Amino acid sequence: MPHRFFVTPAALKDGVVHFTDAQAHQMRDVLRMRAGQEVLALDNLGTEYRVTLREISRAVVRGEIVERRAARGEPKTKIVLYQALVKADKFEWVLQKGTEIGVTEFVPMHTTRAMANNVSKQKYARWTQILTEAAEQAGRGKIPQLQALQSFGDALGQAHTRGGATYVLWENETALDLKRALEITNAEWFHVFVGPEGGFTEQEIALAQTFGAPSVGLGPRILRTETAGMVAISAILYARGDLSHT
Amino acid sequence: MPHRFFVTPAALKDGVVHFTDAQAHQMRDVLRMRAGQEVLALDNLGTEYRVTLREISRAVVRGEIVERRAARGEPKTKIVLYQALVKADKFEWVLQKGTEIGVTEFVPMHTTRAMANNVSKQKYARWTQILTEAAEQAGRGKIPQLQALQSFGDALGQAHTRGGATYVLWENETALDLKRALEITNAEWFHVFVGPEGGFTEQEIALAQTFGAPSVGLGPRILRTETAGMVAISAILYARGDLSHT
Repeated sequence: MPHRFFVTPAALKDGVVHFTDAQAHQMRDVLRMRAGQEVLALDNLGTEYRVTLREISRAVVRGEIVERRAARGEPKTKIVLYQALVKADKFEWVLQKGTEIGVTEFVPMHTTRAMANNVSKQKYARWTQILTEAAEQAGRGKIPQLQALQSFGDALGQAHTRGGATYVLWENETALDLKRALEITNAEWFHVFVGPEGGFTEQEIALAQTFGAPSVGLGPRILRTETAGMVAISAILYARGDLSHT
Repeated sequence: MPHRFFVTPAALKDGVVHFTDAQAHQMRDVLRMRAGQEVLALDNLGTEYRVTLREISRAVVRGEIVERRAARGEPKTKIVLYQALVKADKFEWVLQKGTEIGVTEFVPMHTTRAMANNVSKQKYARWTQILTEAAEQAGRGKIPQLQALQSFGDALGQAHTRGGATYVLWENETALDLKRALEITNAEWFHVFVGPEGGFTEQEIALAQTFGAPSVGLGPRILRTETAGMVAISAILYARGDLSHT
């Protein structure tokens, strides 16, 4: 598979792609690419362009568009992952793995047991970079969106307003499991809530129910917070046929 | 959920559990537990014991068995994960996450693009420790087994001999996806092969076919090696109803 790069609309003009300085550096100095080689440029709107590199110099890296086509790699099923704040390395891991597997949007969330720190601009920039690199590596057609930090209650409100199926993953939920929950919905959008290391509180579970958001269990094994989301999104995409080429 | 500890058969005698020095240290000095508190002791054979701590001293930590019951936390579906050697931190991560999700056995494997280094005794000891801690944390009834390093060919032979369904995860497989593969088997044992960062070779895929082991795709998104196995085992356990309490 050729290397993939997300580009801005302005970078695409008259059948030519001008790559950014950072991308040019990557191609020229890291990947040691040469004129004649092919890359994929993605416009982050759902179109990808096969591009043959024509000029690779100190000053500029420029390619010619040889084919335009719909980007593959975007699941039909859209998952918004509401992840309670966890330690930095785990949160970054959730962003990377979630992007590979197929999350459409991420919402960092503070909860009773994951109190609101502000998230710094530097951290958002770093998270965006992680999402971009993971999306390029995984062959996504779009970079997953990253929302601003929200409270659990606000996040529930957003999910409710946008519609679809909302599941609050909860280790104490033994009656409703994900399989049963998926069997009774034909939603295309899924809002999946994952708590912090200390879990959601009973009050939070009760609050979610007032929004029509049931708690959903993943069986008898206790999953860490960063694992629970990945298992749930893998299962949802599997169940909906989104781990398939057809 | 009470803290859980795997114990040897010798530690259980006449209704009393004697914990190891390391466990005693953990309970006494790290968890600051006191007499009267409850823990779960697991015999790694499928039984768990509710234990009330009776003595916590410098010399010994000892508890009384108050209930004996079948351990929960073992999936009905048995998955053997054959993971090609990858960087140490990723391999350890696969062991930890795989244990949480529900892998029954792990087989470290060398392949054409993950050449055989021996795995040192120290590394095996460390891996075993990771499996034990993850199994305790996740509430498994048994510590997943860890086999010795095998070649891809030997591993295929083992899977073939033991029987069940064998899937070689391959990013270039677009015809057979996991959902279709699972629909046409009633296997209870699954042998899941995951390649190294460079992937399996065409020759390896051809070799697998001679063992009746098809290559199986996970859809259009390119998953890293450590992600592919987690997605596949999540999907298999989901499909078989093993992410459920019932």
